[in-house]
Amino acid sequence: MPKPIDFYFDFSSPYAYFAAQKIDDVALEFGGREVEWRPFLLGVAMKETKNEPLMHQPIKGEYSVHDWNRMARFMKVPWKMPVQFPIASIAAARAFYWISDIDKTKAKAFAHQCFSSYFSEGLNINNVDTVAEIGSQVGIDGCELKKNIADGLIKEKLRNETQAAIDAGVFGSPFFIVDDEKFWGSDRIWMIKRWLKTGGW
Amino acid sequence: MPKPIDFYFDFSSPYAYFAAQKIDDVALEFGGREVEWRPFLLGVAMKETKNEPLMHQPIKGEYSVHDWNRMARFMKVPWKMPVQFPIASIAAARAFYWISDIDKTKAKAFAHQCFSSYFSEGLNINNVDTVAEIGSQVGIDGCELKKNIADGLIKEKLRNETQAAIDAGVFGSPFFIVDDEKFWGSDRIWMIKRWLKTGGW
Repeated sequence: MPKPIDFYFDFSSPYAYFAAQKIDDVALEFGGREVEWRPFLLGVAMKETKNEPLMHQPIKGEYSVHDWNRMARFMKVPWKMPVQFPIASIAAARAFYWISDIDKTKAKAFAHQCFSSYFSEGLNINNVDTVAEIGSQVGIDGCELKKNIADGLIKEKLRNETQAAIDAGVFGSPFFIVDDEKFWGSDRIWMIKRWLKTGGW
Repeated sequence: MPKPIDFYFDFSSPYAYFAAQKIDDVALEFGGREVEWRPFLLGVAMKETKNEPLMHQPIKGEYSVHDWNRMARFMKVPWKMPVQFPIASIAAARAFYWISDIDKTKAKAFAHQCFSSYFSEGLNINNVDTVAEIGSQVGIDGCELKKNIADGLIKEKLRNETQAAIDAGVFGSPFFIVDDEKFWGSDRIWMIKRWLKTGGW
């Protein structure tokens, strides 16, 4: 059984939302692989690379918004540029890891629902009540979720996952590691396909 | 006759080197278009966006080198990571504009030769003697070239072109403008193809 593909992402990253639409299908079709979803806090990684969110960069920020709108139209995925952007994604990421320990399939369903709640409805997925509501939509007890994501263990889990991502060389979102090969950006899914198909070059 | 595609680039940008291998063919095949090559000084644009060269960004710099090596192998283009990198590309860019006024075809040949001299032989294309030698390889008088790129007019031309690029919204290299539509990165050539074919979406 080949190793799963690691899919690192921040819940408030538009390019991660786009990549999330297809990475599982690509991994399965081109490599018979599973995908391990690994939310992390991009803001923490950006401190290491001394980077700023796209929106805070003059000229580049405006282009990015244009590009997200265009990409969403191209992919025909639900999309409305959130008014609050970017946001912290701590609550969503903690909830993901807590659900993941119970049921990985539900965790992915939860992640998809977080992405679309934020990027098509503008809901604040850093709000614990919102996240609990999203949890309940995928069959998770909302009260349990709220209680558990306030727990020290799950906070530590997200801190550790974020640090592990940075240690693995992750600096952007989305970011993929296929065996030991790194791919940054939703723009690189074509390359991941070929890498999986050919075994690399 | 449709408008040419504007291809903005810095001569010391690896992704521009990769894009330069195919943008003319893509423009012709998918849109019956010409390509207007527009070298500019990326460092000046980066001051506007408060960005740093990739190589100066921890973690991201290392990934970039890996990605350039991988991309060159994939594309099967001559490639050797230059020891001096990045470099200023003022001499090459000035020479390009001077040659372009005389003969646009020769200017493109000169640009291709600059890219490969830098990215496969490691020659410093900010050195006027090197640039003059490259000029002579594409049928331009090297002495004339050296004399003319020291002229105030050509210096001003490059300053103006760089400012015009920034004013047009260019912040990275390569950068393409198709009619009024902007595309950043060699990763977006697939999208330019579809845009040309469909007229946009």
